[in-house]
Amino acid sequence: MTGPNQDVQRRPGHASDFARSLAVRLVRSGFRVVVGSRNPKRKASLFPAAAEVTFQAEAAKKADVIFVAIFREHYSTLCDLADVLVGKILVDVSNNTEINHHKESNAEYLASLFPACTVVKAFNVVSAWTLQSGARDGNKQVLICSNNQEAKRTIAEIAQVMGFTPVDMGCMSSACEIENIPLRLLPAWKIPTFLALGLFLCFFTYNLIRQVIHPYIREQKNKLYKIPIEVVNTTLPCVSYVMLSLVYLPGVLAACSQLYYGTKYRRFPDWLDQWLQHRKQIGLLSFFCAALQAVHSLCLPMRRSHRYLLIETAVKQAMEKKKTIWVEEEVWRMEIYISVGIIALGLLSLLAITSLPSIANSLNWREFSFIQSSLGFIALVISTLHTLTYGWSRAFDENQYKFYLPPTYTLTLLVPCTVIIARVIFSLPCIQHRLLRIRRGWEKGRYVKFVLPSATGEFSSGETSSNV
Amino acid sequence: MTGPNQDVQRRPGHASDFARSLAVRLVRSGFRVVVGSRNPKRKASLFPAAAEVTFQAEAAKKADVIFVAIFREHYSTLCDLADVLVGKILVDVSNNTEINHHKESNAEYLASLFPACTVVKAFNVVSAWTLQSGARDGNKQVLICSNNQEAKRTIAEIAQVMGFTPVDMGCMSSACEIENIPLRLLPAWKIPTFLALGLFLCFFTYNLIRQVIHPYIREQKNKLYKIPIEVVNTTLPCVSYVMLSLVYLPGVLAACSQLYYGTKYRRFPDWLDQWLQHRKQIGLLSFFCAALQAVHSLCLPMRRSHRYLLIETAVKQAMEKKKTIWVEEEVWRMEIYISVGIIALGLLSLLAITSLPSIANSLNWREFSFIQSSLGFIALVISTLHTLTYGWSRAFDENQYKFYLPPTYTLTLLVPCTVIIARVIFSLPCIQHRLLRIRRGWEKGRYVKFVLPSATGEFSSGETSSNV
Amino acid sequence: MTGPNQDVQRRPGHASDFARSLAVRLVRSGFRVVVGSRNPKRKASLFPAAAEVTFQAEAAKKADVIFVAIFREHYSTLCDLADVLVGKILVDVSNNTEINHHKESNAEYLASLFPACTVVKAFNVVSAWTLQSGARDGNKQVLICSNNQEAKRTIAEIAQVMGFTPVDMGCMSSACEIENIPLRLLPAWKIPTFLALGLFLCFFTYNLIRQVIHPYIREQKNKLYKIPIEVVNTTLPCVSYVMLSLVYLPGVLAACSQLYYGTKYRRFPDWLDQWLQHRKQIGLLSFFCAALQAVHSLCLPMRRSHRYLLIETAVKQAMEKKKTIWVEEEVWRMEIYISVGIIALGLLSLLAITSLPSIANSLNWREFSFIQSSLGFIALVISTLHTLTYGWSRAFDENQYKFYLPPTYTLTLLVPCTVIIARVIFSLPCIQHRLLRIRRGWEKGRYVKFVLPSATGEFSSGETSSNV
Repeated sequence: MTGPNQDVQRRPGHASDFARSLAVRLVRSGFRVVVGSRNPKRKASLFPAAAEVTFQAEAAKKADVIFVAIFREHYSTLCDLADVLVGKILVDVSNNTEINHHKESNAEYLASLFPACTVVKAFNVVSAWTLQSGARDGNKQVLICSNNQEAKRTIAEIAQVMGFTPVDMGCMSSACEIENIPLRLLPAWKIPTFLALGLFLCFFTYNLIRQVIHPYIREQKNKLYKIPIEVVNTTLPCVSYVMLSLVYLPGVLAACSQLYYGTKYRRFPDWLDQWLQHRKQIGLLSFFCAALQAVHSLCLPMRRSHRYLLIETAVKQAMEKKKTIWVEEEVWRMEIYISVGIIALGLLSLLAITSLPSIANSLNWREFSFIQSSLGFIALVISTLHTLTYGWSRAFDENQYKFYLPPTYTLTLLVPCTVIIARVIFSLPCIQHRLLRIRRGWEKGRYVKFVLPSATGEFSSGETSSNV
Repeated sequence: MTGPNQDVQRRPGHASDFARSLAVRLVRSGFRVVVGSRNPKRKASLFPAAAEVTFQAEAAKKADVIFVAIFREHYSTLCDLADVLVGKILVDVSNNTEINHHKESNAEYLASLFPACTVVKAFNVVSAWTLQSGARDGNKQVLICSNNQEAKRTIAEIAQVMGFTPVDMGCMSSACEIENIPLRLLPAWKIPTFLALGLFLCFFTYNLIRQVIHPYIREQKNKLYKIPIEVVNTTLPCVSYVMLSLVYLPGVLAACSQLYYGTKYRRFPDWLDQWLQHRKQIGLLSFFCAALQAVHSLCLPMRRSHRYLLIETAVKQAMEKKKTIWVEEEVWRMEIYISVGIIALGLLSLLAITSLPSIANSLNWREFSFIQSSLGFIALVISTLHTLTYGWSRAFDENQYKFYLPPTYTLTLLVPCTVIIARVIFSLPCIQHRLLRIRRGWEKGRYVKFVLPSATGEFSSGETSSNV
Repeated sequence: MTGPNQDVQRRPGHASDFARSLAVRLVRSGFRVVVGSRNPKRKASLFPAAAEVTFQAEAAKKADVIFVAIFREHYSTLCDLADVLVGKILVDVSNNTEINHHKESNAEYLASLFPACTVVKAFNVVSAWTLQSGARDGNKQVLICSNNQEAKRTIAEIAQVMGFTPVDMGCMSSACEIENIPLRLLPAWKIPTFLALGLFLCFFTYNLIRQVIHPYIREQKNKLYKIPIEVVNTTLPCVSYVMLSLVYLPGVLAACSQLYYGTKYRRFPDWLDQWLQHRKQIGLLSFFCAALQAVHSLCLPMRRSHRYLLIETAVKQAMEKKKTIWVEEEVWRMEIYISVGIIALGLLSLLAITSLPSIANSLNWREFSFIQSSLGFIALVISTLHTLTYGWSRAFDENQYKFYLPPTYTLTLLVPCTVIIARVIFSLPCIQHRLLRIRRGWEKGRYVKFVLPSATGEFSSGETSSNV
């Protein structure tokens, strides 16, 4: 599964691999490349034949655009070349090893060392692998920033000829942001993952008490073997179900806030904004838990314990000469429970698939909203049915209250039912109408007739950049 | 699962959110942005600090390119500014709420209001979310149309600097088409979905009669519990199998038509063309049904009914002192049936994965055809084996004809077997040769030697657009 | 599942379909199109109304850029038009039917026929389907090569206006490479697929001997029914597990080589380089086998044989009046085995999903490496636990040595354990430090202080191409 970027060879920051790949790609794109090195003879074999490998000073003289593919620590070693570099464009392609490692970005540091040069930050987000693999995988973006528009445009054009999509990130002060991009580690997944782990832990402990500790204390029965599969299998659906409702809860809260304040121009509190932006990740984790639970459930009849219990029941029945143990209600509960569960999982898998970037990009807003909002809400309703069928009448059965703890499923119903009831209320004509008006810009306590147009912006963009 | 475009905040047509996002992106891309509003003080806080928020007339004066981010209903409120707007480029970014809502497109309406301005339609297919999320998710296309090439190019350049891919959609008459794009709701999926639902309903009724109603009428046995899982589980593979064959049937019909008329230049009838274009969706629904059936099958041993029947059989056997119930034929039937089914599902999942846009885009035609056509046909053959193993000798067993209805699987074999036989015939050397010649441009009843070159076009493109 | 490019209608090389699609797209993109044909009347109906269809000579006169959409065999028929074509740009869009079919590429052949024209190779990698489907699916790359920079730029601009991403592939000598691209058939998958098939065959035979042939010879028991499911089900995890370890083995070998030679500038032997590049495919096949095994395992309780054996055991127990057959150790072994297996499968599925191009493209190097390298290694460790739980104490049980052959799982442990031990050793501080230094450019036996900067390249690119 390990793909292109490998831990051994192509680590960004390993300047020389990057340099080689950059040279290969530049040569292929029709540029004349001169490589500067302190030891050109030794390095020549590493570079494509079409690239001239010579001493640094020599190379610097011959070129107008210079890619500085060395570590920040060694920037100062280039100071000897300061005279030759005057007026040239230096492209800083470096990355750091830690976020905000240095006070100023590498590019700004380079610019401070060579005030007579024009420094452009670019290509640091592109890996050596992407550079080498060429055309096919090459529709990657190259983020560019510089204080000099002219130099920025030159580099943007080089990037375009190389098959990349240059993206103008503004002036040099963005360099720090650009340098931090390759160091991010799935920031959008952090909170949702901890949320899922937290919920898992809570429900796991709760189920452990009910399914393992309670029979041990009350009846001295050893049910420890239930921990790896059965307890996990009752925990996962709880996590999945609650997470799914947490995808739709922030939307409900946002609508409530809009209805209460009678405007959509009031900013949501930060926590709500954050929550709204993490819904995709929460939803995908919910699907992942649901899929894991499905596999766990399907594995149940494979286990030895299942087999042993089945045979023991059969033997007991045979010895008691009882021919039938059919309980119609139990049969129906299970058939409906499984059937509804499969439908919910099928819907969730559709939601997950349409979350893939390549598919989401091919949908327009209406399609995306239909699938994620409408189908997703239906999935939540069907999951609720799934949970209720599982519970059946257990909530009213005193025996199910172990240590006075109610059955787990009753706890999970709280948030999802709130969301469902809220969305039903919002779909009442009077409330729906008011919500729609608010979302089209209407505001409480303002003259509607003349206000609406001003509620909408009108842009005028004069360009400062020389691009247009 | 709800992703970026959310039903609460970022609905396109909610002009102000779009305006804000557009302003943010323009500022980031290095443009000078002036926002015009009737109430600049109130709105200023919503926009990035770098954007100047002022009165509409003021803003209009300062800019050359004006993004009109207001609803169509309020276009007329801009008429006061008509003098200031003379000669400027107005970019219509609006969307409708219904397909073909108005007689003329919004952009054409705007153009009619401001004859002294140049109107360009653009950015309506881009959501506020895409505008905000910036660089990374930003490789979206911006469809542009206008009667003025110069203005179109200006906007295309702005779009490119913002990180989008501008696509020239021609002159203003395309505006209507562009405005309808965001309102489409999965048009390619409509027919295939109804087809799948129709087939499901037919087969479900048929199986219901055979599996539930027949035993109830003939033997007064209550088998209603079979409806949620077992009847669905015998229905889904029928739907999946017939749908899979419907993917390959239009190709066979097309080949027949080509062989019959002896040319490939005769257009197929519309229904066949439509069918050929919906094969991907039909195939994916076939895979979805197959996957659902697999899950249903795997759930069978989990059910209470399975458990009860198993125990009852065991008890019965024990009481009759019968030690063995092993039926070698039944064992083999089931082992082969399952094994072949897994292979078919594995192949179908490969086909489904290579249908993902990001993977399909990375395949060349030969690879795509190898997987979808060759592997897909093998999947059809293996599915046929799967069905035949399931049927075994039931077609010849009188007891299987409930109410004189033949076993379901015999009905499903019709279309797939036709397709398989047709493809075998087409692969006979004589027919294959003729087909290949037809597809390379040969036509029946024409001199072959000199005709072939003329059967192929040669293009000359002189450009009217000022782009090239 | 058959998607856009179909075997019947749109085969590349079927010049006329391609011509039509090209014409449609050019017209839509705002170009004036003249189609030249030997029989304009017959062909006119095939082309969009906006395209003028006339005789070849007429068409050639009217245009500056001529797309030659005919087969190589018929290039010579254009020689009559040589006078009209002088100084024009001929775009060769042709493909071959076999790799390296002709000595010189089609484009070079065309150039030799028309020395007075400028020949550009382009658009051959784009299918007729992509041309027709327009904007949305159209972010495909167009590879372009020519000896004339000016002509190359003209075609690149046309491609861009049509919504494609032009990629400069250098001079005419690349035409052969470009023409071979559409003929490739999943080259990266060949070796990994044969590897997987080879491993499958070996382990299958080994398991067949142990599970079917041994009981038949020693105890005359007919266990042939085990072949389709059970033997396959013990073979697939072996293949999957060994393949997974083969993903991480080359990284270990590369690190060993770097440690031994004390430098990262020594090129790896070719076989290791090849192996490093095929890790993604090996990993995906490993996941595919693991998923197939999971489905096989889940199917076990569905089989008749399982049912029969269960009932027979129950009957036997009942007749012997044995009430309990619970074996605590067996129960625990199975519960842990299944639980660990599900975790491993869950991790592998995460690795597989992040291998999808659209997701891999949205990850930065650190994220990709975290998932593929760290999570992948954890998956390998958990798979090892899965295998060990499966084996339990069988390796020390004499009865498991059928024909003196050790249990299969002991054989599979070899490579994975080597990889795990090696990675543990590499993580020892002293070795890790040395490895890191080597990867940052340090070399054994050279002065470190001054050498480092020279170990890193510095590029100077002066442009020969007129692009920049």
